[in-house]
Amino acid sequence: MRDKQPCWILRTEATECCWKMAGRKVLIVYAHQEPKSLNGALKTVAVEELSKQGCTVTVSDLYAMQFEPRATRNDIVDCLHNSDEFNYGVETWEAYKRGGLSNDLIEEQKKVQEADLLIFQFPLYWFSMPAIMKGWMDRVLVQGFAHEFPNCYDSGLLKNKLALFSFTTGGSKEMYAKGGINGDTRYLLWPMQHGIMHFCGVKVLEPHICFAPEYVSEEKRKEMLLAWAQRLKTLWKEEPINCSPEWYFK
Amino acid sequence: MRDKQPCWILRTEATECCWKMAGRKVLIVYAHQEPKSLNGALKTVAVEELSKQGCTVTVSDLYAMQFEPRATRNDIVDCLHNSDEFNYGVETWEAYKRGGLSNDLIEEQKKVQEADLLIFQFPLYWFSMPAIMKGWMDRVLVQGFAHEFPNCYDSGLLKNKLALFSFTTGGSKEMYAKGGINGDTRYLLWPMQHGIMHFCGVKVLEPHICFAPEYVSEEKRKEMLLAWAQRLKTLWKEEPINCSPEWYFK
Repeated sequence: MRDKQPCWILRTEATECCWKMAGRKVLIVYAHQEPKSLNGALKTVAVEELSKQGCTVTVSDLYAMQFEPRATRNDIVDCLHNSDEFNYGVETWEAYKRGGLSNDLIEEQKKVQEADLLIFQFPLYWFSMPAIMKGWMDRVLVQGFAHEFPNCYDSGLLKNKLALFSFTTGGSKEMYAKGGINGDTRYLLWPMQHGIMHFCGVKVLEPHICFAPEYVSEEKRKEMLLAWAQRLKTLWKEEPINCSPEWYFK
Repeated sequence: MRDKQPCWILRTEATECCWKMAGRKVLIVYAHQEPKSLNGALKTVAVEELSKQGCTVTVSDLYAMQFEPRATRNDIVDCLHNSDEFNYGVETWEAYKRGGLSNDLIEEQKKVQEADLLIFQFPLYWFSMPAIMKGWMDRVLVQGFAHEFPNCYDSGLLKNKLALFSFTTGGSKEMYAKGGINGDTRYLLWPMQHGIMHFCGVKVLEPHICFAPEYVSEEKRKEMLLAWAQRLKTLWKEEPINCSPEWYFK
């Protein structure tokens, strides 16, 4: 039987933590077109390391799945609640309750429901995730499933889960510094971490950022992969961030 | 002949401003599934008001166009620069230079190139734009067309254009206040206004936000449409915001 107690409350010795990790379920939502990319390699590292720990790892490889990012009437397989004026939020909420969502959404929701940890692996596109991953958020995290007012933020319906945003950038670390031209990476994490994950009750771990992998040596890229593997070894001992404006804009 | 002088530098009487507005070109990138929605009505108000001023208005109705949001190899119609390892940013840059981008992207780029003002009209999805509109950003604003290092930010390739984000929210104005549960709307505007538009050299006008239209009276919704029409009457006299961290996080 799976222990549903959140792992981050454990502050005990390594052996006990290892025992807790076994059986944990991880969903990696992955958005890169090229398996040979650094994003592809980071995803593979995570699958291997977490499997080694005894976790069950599922990957939603969005491009390979040709995942549909557009939020349309097709997401509701049966009749509409109000066919006179289409309201996506209301229609998917109603469809969720009566089991009328399209199969691809039901499949993704099952994966989320089972997961203790969600890892989002992607290249940063325009200070955010690629559209195919934004579409996953728009379509999968339906009202009734992930939140249902007033059950949002700390009482969101996906509480007791963890999320981690792992991404690569085009710009350097200096460009993404607080006084840098792109501003602090924390600024751009606000909509993703607070606006999506925290809103659904998910606790957020520190992001994992590989800066400008296209402009560094092969050796440096290998170090990036090693650093990720290393972090994953003790991931379950990490405490979530305090997901409030202070963390982002202080 | 069209006067390419940016309109916002004009600080003269209304008649001269009216004369300057005639002939200006506006592209409205619109993302809502339902023409009867408030977003649909806001789009129509903009088309009517700006046309009345003598502007040429083009609408990219993304859902009606079934616009493709996924950034894939299909965006390059001919051979790849490096078919051994697909890199979307590099491939679209190279394809742009040799005229090898897919037709839907070329069409959108033409509209952007001609426009003096870009209006983005959408319902806020997860503290950001819907995936179909994010896909428009990801795919249309290709390197070489919209930016080309070091031509970014104030020297971005789309300088001398204006952009305006006009959106509706689910949450109330109080929820989106600085101390509110969702935080200041300016926080979530950072990736869109600074990370995308400013990066491409586009100057940004104050956003236009209709809070929680689903939870207000029909009369209040009519007031929202009137307020938008009213703002558009003097839009060309507005000064762009100072798109720096101070505006967002002060």
